[in-house]
Amino acid sequence: MIELSKYYFGIDVGGTEIKFGTFNDSNKLLDSFRIPTPTSNVRVELVETIYTQILKKLRQDKHEVKELLGIGITIPGLVVDGIVAFCSNIDLGQNFDIVSEIKTRFASLDLKVVVGNDASLAAFGEYKFLNNSKVKNIVFITLGTGVGGGIIVDGKLIKGFTGSAGEIGHIPYDLSNNRQCGCGSVGCVETVAGTYGMIKTAQDMMKTESSTLKGLDVSPKLIFDHAKEGDLLALKTVDSVAKAIAYMAVTIAVTVDPELFIIGGGISKAGSFLLSKINYHYQKLARFDTIKARFEIAKLGNDAGIYGAYYLVLE
Amino acid sequence: MIELSKYYFGIDVGGTEIKFGTFNDSNKLLDSFRIPTPTSNVRVELVETIYTQILKKLRQDKHEVKELLGIGITIPGLVVDGIVAFCSNIDLGQNFDIVSEIKTRFASLDLKVVVGNDASLAAFGEYKFLNNSKVKNIVFITLGTGVGGGIIVDGKLIKGFTGSAGEIGHIPYDLSNNRQCGCGSVGCVETVAGTYGMIKTAQDMMKTESSTLKGLDVSPKLIFDHAKEGDLLALKTVDSVAKAIAYMAVTIAVTVDPELFIIGGGISKAGSFLLSKINYHYQKLARFDTIKARFEIAKLGNDAGIYGAYYLVLE
Repeated sequence: MIELSKYYFGIDVGGTEIKFGTFNDSNKLLDSFRIPTPTSNVRVELVETIYTQILKKLRQDKHEVKELLGIGITIPGLVVDGIVAFCSNIDLGQNFDIVSEIKTRFASLDLKVVVGNDASLAAFGEYKFLNNSKVKNIVFITLGTGVGGGIIVDGKLIKGFTGSAGEIGHIPYDLSNNRQCGCGSVGCVETVAGTYGMIKTAQDMMKTESSTLKGLDVSPKLIFDHAKEGDLLALKTVDSVAKAIAYMAVTIAVTVDPELFIIGGGISKAGSFLLSKINYHYQKLARFDTIKARFEIAKLGNDAGIYGAYYLVLE
Repeated sequence: MIELSKYYFGIDVGGTEIKFGTFNDSNKLLDSFRIPTPTSNVRVELVETIYTQILKKLRQDKHEVKELLGIGITIPGLVVDGIVAFCSNIDLGQNFDIVSEIKTRFASLDLKVVVGNDASLAAFGEYKFLNNSKVKNIVFITLGTGVGGGIIVDGKLIKGFTGSAGEIGHIPYDLSNNRQCGCGSVGCVETVAGTYGMIKTAQDMMKTESSTLKGLDVSPKLIFDHAKEGDLLALKTVDSVAKAIAYMAVTIAVTVDPELFIIGGGISKAGSFLLSKINYHYQKLARFDTIKARFEIAKLGNDAGIYGAYYLVLE
């Protein structure tokens, strides 16, 4: 048996799968694995899945339950004061006290269990992973199906009054674009820079303009690939995303004034191709000294959530 | 002689006058007075004015210099790490270390002297004056010549990486309005909701529409007065201001998610007439639970700055 006195789980609950990460207290990700997210009787099955998978992993790694010091969980929904208020992609109903349920299942009220919003904890994971005590103010932007984020002010993740701090994808951007957003409003940044927004922009232009994308099953990856090969319509689509993100960042900059914007999420795989375009529009639009803010691609990729959940346990 | 062991000055430095407030340590404003802001040799004369007025007031009130425990100063410019980086309305040059200069003039390095941005400290003054430990997240919006603000997160005034946190009047609002803002950019909220923006909106409409404002020297006060009397053009102008402020608030709400927006500054004298219109547009535009945020008119009026400067000394 490996001698390990401290053992933590960072668990990133997504709409389709749950990612489990195991950590020791040296901030090292030891191992990770994925399990499908339950689709029926979800409250009970989610707790049961987390419980059984943790026990199974502990056994596999020849650890005892008493070595388990904490469990951090991310949820793709609104988390207020440790309660999952609402989650649009997973049927958890309203005000689900997942923390108490898991403690009860482990029959241990002393076990540290914490929960937070996925984008916020991804932000926190990226921030802590920077491991740079001089950087105190960052904004994490996650680009994927949705556009989300997390805001670190003076080294702390901010949550807000209703748990909506960092819901930056819903900053109003183009109120006249008639694009309904998942949040119920119209014209959010997400309606242009999210996956569906991006595809819609390309499809709308294809009605009147030629493109190498025509006849293909358009996806963000395809749009980026064709843009890199010089297709004008794909390039204009990528530019519309970059412009929306830059506009959002300029707005955030005169509000909380971060030193660094970290871009994560699936779309961030486009890397410097996207980053340079965001930076171009940001530099044109930025107010005052906020032009000094830097943009970087996230370091942790899809592991940001499990890292953030783990770091939250340590707080 | 009145027995007072603790005596503080809150000093609000404006473009045309300097307001001095005296406080004891029971958060009570004892007295206030105004002196014109120096216009030549400003660095030296500003320090000299502050020094001589404080000594004069101490003598008048029969206090000794040793009873002076601290001086807080607001500056209508960018303050970074206690240094006045830049001030557009007062000729202080760049990177003026007013704190050290005042300490030197008093020949007391132990004297507590602090400095901060005027809108930020007005926010802090209003926040501390609420004296409600349950309210931790507020945003102060100051409406006047400019549109500014201050953001309190978890009870603390946030400053940002470049000192631009709370410069919410420069959130991009209508990039196609071709209105140059004082910050050098185009289309900021201030270009619509600031004094000049408001007058410009009314004047532009008067080219083609009738109004009881025609032929008059249009000012914000006049616009509000005529709007209250039912003039359609004046009403539309006030509505454009309310809409811009609501848009700005919605944007801020999905970023830092405050419980309360406090509206101050000269334009806030329009009171509930303006507040109800801001609220109307906010309710229409708000995302998620941020619709729960409340709007209130500031309590301290023009004294918010001196209160904020005083409270900063106590921090």
